[in-house]
Amino acid sequence: MKSMDKIVSLCKRRGFLFQSSEIYGGVQGFWDYGPLGVELKRNVKDAWWHDMIAGHNELIAPASAPSTFEMVGLDCTIIMHPQVWKNSGHFDLFCDQMVDCRESKKRYRFDQVRGRYVQYEDQKVFVTTMAEQEEELSEVRRRGMKFFKLRPKDADKITIGDESLTLDKLDNTSDVLGPDAKALDTLTEPREFNLMFKTTLGALGGEEDVTFLRPETAQGIFVNFKNVVDSSRVKIPFGIGQVGKSFRNEITPRNFTFRSREFEQMEIEFFCHPDTSQEWYRYWRDRRLAWYTKLGLSSESLIMREHHVEELAHYSVGTADIEYAFPFLPEGEYGELEGIAHRGDFDLRSHMEGKLDPSTNPMTVELNENGKPKYRGSGKDLSYRDEVTNEKFIPHVVEPSAGADRGVLAFLCEAYTEDEAPDENGNLQTRTVMKLHPRLAPIKAAVFPLVKKDGMPEVAKEIYGELKEHFNVFYDEKGAVGRRYRRQDEAGTPYCITVDTDTLSDKTVTIRDRDTLEQTRVKIDDLVADLSSRISS
Amino acid sequence: MKSMDKIVSLCKRRGFLFQSSEIYGGVQGFWDYGPLGVELKRNVKDAWWHDMIAGHNELIAPASAPSTFEMVGLDCTIIMHPQVWKNSGHFDLFCDQMVDCRESKKRYRFDQVRGRYVQYEDQKVFVTTMAEQEEELSEVRRRGMKFFKLRPKDADKITIGDESLTLDKLDNTSDVLGPDAKALDTLTEPREFNLMFKTTLGALGGEEDVTFLRPETAQGIFVNFKNVVDSSRVKIPFGIGQVGKSFRNEITPRNFTFRSREFEQMEIEFFCHPDTSQEWYRYWRDRRLAWYTKLGLSSESLIMREHHVEELAHYSVGTADIEYAFPFLPEGEYGELEGIAHRGDFDLRSHMEGKLDPSTNPMTVELNENGKPKYRGSGKDLSYRDEVTNEKFIPHVVEPSAGADRGVLAFLCEAYTEDEAPDENGNLQTRTVMKLHPRLAPIKAAVFPLVKKDGMPEVAKEIYGELKEHFNVFYDEKGAVGRRYRRQDEAGTPYCITVDTDTLSDKTVTIRDRDTLEQTRVKIDDLVADLSSRISS
Repeated sequence: MKSMDKIVSLCKRRGFLFQSSEIYGGVQGFWDYGPLGVELKRNVKDAWWHDMIAGHNELIAPASAPSTFEMVGLDCTIIMHPQVWKNSGHFDLFCDQMVDCRESKKRYRFDQVRGRYVQYEDQKVFVTTMAEQEEELSEVRRRGMKFFKLRPKDADKITIGDESLTLDKLDNTSDVLGPDAKALDTLTEPREFNLMFKTTLGALGGEEDVTFLRPETAQGIFVNFKNVVDSSRVKIPFGIGQVGKSFRNEITPRNFTFRSREFEQMEIEFFCHPDTSQEWYRYWRDRRLAWYTKLGLSSESLIMREHHVEELAHYSVGTADIEYAFPFLPEGEYGELEGIAHRGDFDLRSHMEGKLDPSTNPMTVELNENGKPKYRGSGKDLSYRDEVTNEKFIPHVVEPSAGADRGVLAFLCEAYTEDEAPDENGNLQTRTVMKLHPRLAPIKAAVFPLVKKDGMPEVAKEIYGELKEHFNVFYDEKGAVGRRYRRQDEAGTPYCITVDTDTLSDKTVTIRDRDTLEQTRVKIDDLVADLSSRISS
Repeated sequence: MKSMDKIVSLCKRRGFLFQSSEIYGGVQGFWDYGPLGVELKRNVKDAWWHDMIAGHNELIAPASAPSTFEMVGLDCTIIMHPQVWKNSGHFDLFCDQMVDCRESKKRYRFDQVRGRYVQYEDQKVFVTTMAEQEEELSEVRRRGMKFFKLRPKDADKITIGDESLTLDKLDNTSDVLGPDAKALDTLTEPREFNLMFKTTLGALGGEEDVTFLRPETAQGIFVNFKNVVDSSRVKIPFGIGQVGKSFRNEITPRNFTFRSREFEQMEIEFFCHPDTSQEWYRYWRDRRLAWYTKLGLSSESLIMREHHVEELAHYSVGTADIEYAFPFLPEGEYGELEGIAHRGDFDLRSHMEGKLDPSTNPMTVELNENGKPKYRGSGKDLSYRDEVTNEKFIPHVVEPSAGADRGVLAFLCEAYTEDEAPDENGNLQTRTVMKLHPRLAPIKAAVFPLVKKDGMPEVAKEIYGELKEHFNVFYDEKGAVGRRYRRQDEAGTPYCITVDTDTLSDKTVTIRDRDTLEQTRVKIDDLVADLSSRISS
């Protein structure tokens, strides 16, 4: 049976993931990738980079795309100018609400306690905490200044008797029972807590030197839009992709690496003409979903959740989340792997002009004391002129934003399998096997001499040396070959190559397939080509 | 002529490097990699990862190595437990000295003003600022709690008349003229400024939640030493490699990307038996130097600078810097690319036991009010037991620590060339060409149809599509072919493939070599193999 405990335990035992600073008791929300984990994560990121950016053929329009398009990469700093975050909205709006409890003296994330509703009149405690749904919605709200509405299915859960409560009612802290309190009315009013990690530049340390670790890689792309257009010869439509670390000071990190404070993103900002942006939105939504299934996530465990119209920002025609049925979630629930958002011209315009006119954009504008928008943008022209039509416009943006760590976690969860395989004597034994896609597997093949004599190790070592130039391969000569297979199964190694007696005469080896257990004989000379074709297929 | 101005300008114009947050006026010491830059940097990091870690053959001892050895990877978080930095020494010792000027009200890095010596007796101003040498030595001091001595060649520079001044004398601030002051004695006593960027974890924000962005990736490896030994089956000698961002709050970042506040490291911690650590130190020192020349840095521009015995920490038997003659330095001066340090058991022991006994280790021990070492380590046993000899010991460490951004900068500087090449009419014209090693070049090949008719574009596009699966290639059909060549020369593209009239009949194309300008005809069917062998050779 697949369980989160077993997956976490295997990850530690085999060196996929360790808790950060474990010898000092660890730090909540930070995870290190061990020898197998780092190769897996590199493979996930490299697959994304190849499939989305470096391997993209800009001369042929994919069947479902409106036209051909170009893709380029970028790598920006984690620390940027503080004005970036003021104009992006993160400085004012990237917040969680906190409440303090006067009775327990503890601090809570308000959206995780507000569901602990106590019906005011008869003091009945309402036990559904709503933390799951709330956290998800809070994420949506934080991500992009969007209107906030409960999904209908969640609304059901807060019906008490005949009364269907709206979320507004739960905002009254005097109606909410503190998690460690015995009576009502112990919680303070919610206060905002910005989720960006703050730091200070230089030795002077004045307020103007305060800046933030980026909470998303996206803004680095927006502020470089003009640099990219001017330095490469890209024409709209085109996308800029970036892979890199982001930081969010989550109040309650949890679920293994799923909600970490330091995490890695793989983001594309795709710039297109406003008239075709809806088509591009649909193209990227479908293409990104297909990417996960191509690399091994099963369609049954994935859903595409289109946001309701009420959840969308005013500028957006659509946002969809690709969600995965992580084993730590209750049956039927899914966790976000990637969001694909139509963001209109919101971001480029914000960095040009600052926050928009409050009369047209009431949700996103912070006003100063004179009723004027608080941030004025960079004043730089971030519009684009089409060389053919001579039309000048601010491009619309479609943003497929994937979490690399969440992707890795989903691939690990999907891969974890317990099945039965015959041991040395042909008796079926339970085995644990990580059925990772060959492109993602940390070790592509292990090379074994069947026994440690008769010149087999020498031949096996030679094969290992030749393969090592092309693939991450592993050599093992210790113990029974069955045990060596099992160790590779746990590491997710798709192919085991064994040198046996026949090898010495006919220069062939066996390749054992991790998933089918099938063994085929291959000529040593054909091994590189054979493995290449198995891995890329 | 090679000049820093020209290199910086090409980097911006062609999209290798942009100033971070440029539309907001930039942030000092932060640089973004553009579309060409990100591919170049990926190639540098991937070459390192392949050559040092994933492609390492653990079964064959290199000629100059004491024995075979294993290499594995790791990827740790940037934010770690604050105790990591207390026990590593960075919390107390990773500092620069600052002084304030009472006259100008400005703040300076003391080691950059202390050379502004005024001879006390006759008030003659000594004008050599010593900033160059000081900065370098300060780096040495910061890196690892080492004794601090001027190199003999620098000592010459502070001779005034017959008197040869020691650095101690310069430490007297009343003898130093503030850079913007007219009289002596305006500077405050130097105060320490820690170079780690500080941030706070979680919403409570107490002192115990203060932590730091890592100033080096190395410590993440040390604190995971036991996890790696326990989860993989590595045996000593072995190395753990890591690539990742580090942060240093430099008071005066400068020289393009050379001294940045956010930068990427490629570090190896190599763990070995104390008895063989000197041999391993020499092995890594020589191997790392060879890596740079193999990838195109000329031996004339590289030096290996062994630290003097007086510069070494008490636990170290050797430290060497690989330095490159960056064009922004004066003739005959070099800047550090990589340091290879013998670190003894200092780091593992510090994380086990905390700071050592002050009687044996006076330089590195901070004492508390009772005269006991201030930090007590993790209390975890980080020693290693040899399975064969059963000997238990704390491994010694050799640390080859490379700067990825400095590597990229050196490769860019080395590559920048102005030579002459014939134009369409056979007349020699000056051309700018980036002679990057084919493995490092952002674009491996460009595909051109000679003219935009006669079916040539169709054939060229097909070739582009086939190559794109294997390499980062570029298609260009715009303008005269000579101009297309020049654009690729500036981007560092080593090969240009042209489809011409002959192609249509004999299915061959020309491959033009960027550096020799030689053109050879190759069969389309052989292109992938031909390019592969050119790139890897």
